[in-house]
Amino acid sequence: MPEYDHHIAVTRDADVFTGDLTDGWLVGGAVNGGYLLSVIGHALAQLVPGKPDPISVSAYYLSAAAPGPATVHTRVVRDGRSVATLAADLRQDGDDRITVLAMYGDLARQPDDVRTTAAPPDLPPLEECVSNSDAPEEVRRTAPLMGRFEMRFDPRHVGWAVGQPSGNGELQAWFRLAEEREPDPISLLTVVDALPPVTFELGMMGWAPTLELTAHVRARPVPGWLRVRHATRNIAGGMFEEDCEVWDAADRLVAQSRQLARLPRSR
Amino acid sequence: MPEYDHHIAVTRDADVFTGDLTDGWLVGGAVNGGYLLSVIGHALAQLVPGKPDPISVSAYYLSAAAPGPATVHTRVVRDGRSVATLAADLRQDGDDRITVLAMYGDLARQPDDVRTTAAPPDLPPLEECVSNSDAPEEVRRTAPLMGRFEMRFDPRHVGWAVGQPSGNGELQAWFRLAEEREPDPISLLTVVDALPPVTFELGMMGWAPTLELTAHVRARPVPGWLRVRHATRNIAGGMFEEDCEVWDAADRLVAQSRQLARLPRSR
Repeated sequence: MPEYDHHIAVTRDADVFTGDLTDGWLVGGAVNGGYLLSVIGHALAQLVPGKPDPISVSAYYLSAAAPGPATVHTRVVRDGRSVATLAADLRQDGDDRITVLAMYGDLARQPDDVRTTAAPPDLPPLEECVSNSDAPEEVRRTAPLMGRFEMRFDPRHVGWAVGQPSGNGELQAWFRLAEEREPDPISLLTVVDALPPVTFELGMMGWAPTLELTAHVRARPVPGWLRVRHATRNIAGGMFEEDCEVWDAADRLVAQSRQLARLPRSR
Repeated sequence: MPEYDHHIAVTRDADVFTGDLTDGWLVGGAVNGGYLLSVIGHALAQLVPGKPDPISVSAYYLSAAAPGPATVHTRVVRDGRSVATLAADLRQDGDDRITVLAMYGDLARQPDDVRTTAAPPDLPPLEECVSNSDAPEEVRRTAPLMGRFEMRFDPRHVGWAVGQPSGNGELQAWFRLAEEREPDPISLLTVVDALPPVTFELGMMGWAPTLELTAHVRARPVPGWLRVRHATRNIAGGMFEEDCEVWDAADRLVAQSRQLARLPRSR
């Protein structure tokens, strides 16, 4: 079993699921929010038979989670004909860390018509991109999550790594989980929050805590590399929005997300 | 007091608020989802002293609401230093119609720096736009909500009204509540879901029920007309996303939202 499946594993006791948050997804002292969302999403996938796939997930981040045991307390809000609305709280040491509303269904049973004006990220071929495995040792020490996936950055979007941010508020990269673990709807919840904050490309290098993140999974991804694009347009009131698109190897837009995050304090 | 304030009025008894949903916001037999969100948002505004403004609101629509009495059951999930995370359920006849997570704070106390690459909608002047008051009598009969506001459509985006949809998945209009009731953070929750579904401009004229809508209020609007832009890029699995931006008279992006909606059945 790939490491990712161990990391998001949960055991069920009625409506409460227990997992063990790995220190492998730490970044800057906190457990990555996308990984946490997949742990919650994995628990919710087991709640309603026949509705295993997240279609929409809205997460409100209350406080930072730490490596170690955590429980996911779940509730079926409404089980409808084709979709179910669900709620969950990720709890550690008696405190809620994340509270979630979600809509689950079966993506394989949705109509397969697609009509889109969206285009995949304009990314150079893999071999021309900059690998996260080339990151300096100090970066990988403060961000162990870098070992959980392969990320190949568009060379036009890595100025931040050498003190020359582009200033255009965009980041895009190829993405694949370690051990070539293939993407699925649950792992897409990790992917939408795996890249560095898009504020890096605006020259703000600090941690940008997510306040709210809503992800829509629009299709089941096919096996292979994903392409991920992050963009922000509006910084105001000490917050910014970060829009994310995830495209699969079949050129399909498989996930869209928007998060509202706090600007890094160290500007 | 303007009619809008009567329509969103709620009375409080501990954590439960009671309102009376008006038939004035009906559209196609159901009460408009944006108006319902403002009723809920208005209740939540009274929950935590010093945190009257919605900053992020995520609503999952469970079933259609009808005119008449409704209760809003609220809960403080976490009251933090600058923001509070809140939950609410809008209930009618013993059933939850909408379930909500939200983050509230005080927009007037946020830092006032703005850095943006977003541009206001490219709308012709008011007098060159097409007024909703020119809508045929039959439209206004099936959509009484048209009497609740003034909406002036970009003439390039009204092809749907004469059977010639543009096909580009965009709609934009000037917006103002009736009686020149000025915009505020709570009423922006109405504005993000007041335009016709963007699918009208794709030639799909039916009702497009909202499944999930998340709105971010990014600043307090100044008095005057708002400009609203809706766009969709991706139809897949029988669903589409609808992105909305609301700009105020000071050229400020005051709200952003995205909803996931079901395609109209009558295609």
